[in-house]
Amino acid sequence: MSRDFHARARLVLDRLTKPVGSLGRLEELAAQYVAISQMLPPVMPEPVVFTLAADHGVARESVSAYPSSVTAQMVMNFLNGGAAINVLAQQVGAHVRVVDMGVECDLGSPSGLVVHKIGLGTNNFVEGPAMSHEQALQSIEVGIRLAREAHADGMRVIGIGEMGIGNTTSSSAIAAVMIGQSVAKVTGKGTGVDAERFARKIQVIEQGIQRNSPNVQDPLDVLAKVGGFEIGGLVGLILGGAACRIPVVLDGFITGAAMLVAQALAPHCQDYVIPSHCSAELGHRCILEHLGLHPLLDLGLCLGEGTGACLAISLLRASVACLMDMATFDSAGVDGAEALVSEQG
Amino acid sequence: MSRDFHARARLVLDRLTKPVGSLGRLEELAAQYVAISQMLPPVMPEPVVFTLAADHGVARESVSAYPSSVTAQMVMNFLNGGAAINVLAQQVGAHVRVVDMGVECDLGSPSGLVVHKIGLGTNNFVEGPAMSHEQALQSIEVGIRLAREAHADGMRVIGIGEMGIGNTTSSSAIAAVMIGQSVAKVTGKGTGVDAERFARKIQVIEQGIQRNSPNVQDPLDVLAKVGGFEIGGLVGLILGGAACRIPVVLDGFITGAAMLVAQALAPHCQDYVIPSHCSAELGHRCILEHLGLHPLLDLGLCLGEGTGACLAISLLRASVACLMDMATFDSAGVDGAEALVSEQG
Repeated sequence: MSRDFHARARLVLDRLTKPVGSLGRLEELAAQYVAISQMLPPVMPEPVVFTLAADHGVARESVSAYPSSVTAQMVMNFLNGGAAINVLAQQVGAHVRVVDMGVECDLGSPSGLVVHKIGLGTNNFVEGPAMSHEQALQSIEVGIRLAREAHADGMRVIGIGEMGIGNTTSSSAIAAVMIGQSVAKVTGKGTGVDAERFARKIQVIEQGIQRNSPNVQDPLDVLAKVGGFEIGGLVGLILGGAACRIPVVLDGFITGAAMLVAQALAPHCQDYVIPSHCSAELGHRCILEHLGLHPLLDLGLCLGEGTGACLAISLLRASVACLMDMATFDSAGVDGAEALVSEQG
Repeated sequence: MSRDFHARARLVLDRLTKPVGSLGRLEELAAQYVAISQMLPPVMPEPVVFTLAADHGVARESVSAYPSSVTAQMVMNFLNGGAAINVLAQQVGAHVRVVDMGVECDLGSPSGLVVHKIGLGTNNFVEGPAMSHEQALQSIEVGIRLAREAHADGMRVIGIGEMGIGNTTSSSAIAAVMIGQSVAKVTGKGTGVDAERFARKIQVIEQGIQRNSPNVQDPLDVLAKVGGFEIGGLVGLILGGAACRIPVVLDGFITGAAMLVAQALAPHCQDYVIPSHCSAELGHRCILEHLGLHPLLDLGLCLGEGTGACLAISLLRASVACLMDMATFDSAGVDGAEALVSEQG
């Protein structure tokens, strides 16, 4: 991220036919994009959304309202274009890449599915580590590779999302450890569970943390012990996107947990991240506050898949369009000198 | 607005392949649209944004950072496609209709300009009423007619916006009277004024209210005495949109002031309104709270023109697309029964 390009983008924005700063966070977004891509004028970013799927052994503890089989069924739904992510990605012209990071059954290789299975679902972290350190590293490497391939394909903004029954449980475990917060403070109802199952979910997470003692100083250890294959993939997408100078648009709670790990591994990757929304899932706000990220949207979404990321990509594209296509005070012959020296938009 | 269609839309939404309620406010938006249009399945709403322009006599009191001449210059900028509204409308595929409701100079009839001049700018409300009751009524009637014409042209969602140097001053006066709030609480810095000019702006509004004694029981009287021609037009667009069963997407502070008048004239029009965003302009939040409207976005925008409305139209279209195009649990063969009976998304 280039401070110089950021400052130059601000200068251009201040000459456009509008009061200084009056496009609010759209101006910040456009400047961030220019600072990341280091192109001025910028090119409208071609978007791709990655929806990474995997299963979680901890789902066997009845922490979700849905059975694990739904992960595979939803992958087929993604491939058939029937899920929310397909519809919302189409609205913003984003490609959707569905990646099997470790669904518990063999899906074969249906058309459109990118297969990078690290395993057939993680182990149940109540009984031991969800995965080995090697698998955790492997999952991150897959994500980095996916980001690099997307960049090579001409993609210039990456939205990240996921699907995995049980993955709010894993994400709450990661958040509790990484933030040093009580499990109850960072655990929500996921896809929707009743009070009894919710109490069980908290208990299961506490057990898992106690059983595995993840080392907060070692983010890879946390990912391995209580994380998931798709969460590792998301970490890799964030790191890989930043390395390729592409903004990475976060989605909801699970991508927030991935961001905790990514930021701990490489703090500067945060400059490349756009926090799309604050999920209704309890704990997401806590993650965003811990990271100092201010979400663009707060619409009560709690679906994942990359749905919130799509909405934010739409805002990013709108902001870049303003920077690229608006007239300046000079070019439009509009009197604006007095306002240009004002600090307030 | 039909409660029956609203309930039927909710039933459809609950069968889609996502946890119940997990699309948050997008689901509310889709249900509102179905309830307003009374079509299920709905048709993707064709959007139009009206940018109404007029001048304000009170601008002679130096309440803005820009001279009144900027109103006409910006109208030409709208017609040439160089303003933020042009760029953001294009992003969401919305038509832009630029209407001269009373710019203080004669713009002629350049291509694309809709001319409905009520006068050459309002009178300075510090010296007397901004306009006559007849003119206030006339401006509302123009707005109603514009909405009816848009409906006849096949438009199915109307975004409303404005341009008029001095119009945050008029809007603050309307808000102070209609809400019964002190002028200081509902007055912001508009396009950006320094502390001295800001203090003067508040004083001018207080003088105007004292001089004219607008009758809060008579919204037309308030509009006439301290309002503006474009604000009357916005009131008409809201009333006309509701009458045609088209959702009307509000924009920032000035459209909020128009909504105060519209709601006082016809309380039920509020069911047809989508509050797009909360402006950075002090006083907008106060208006929204007074009306009980919850904005979709809070991005620090304070530009007007209909820019925030465009962003919200994008969300509306996304929500309708989900309702129209997502698979159901049955059609996609996804197990979802247990979650369907859950209350929590």
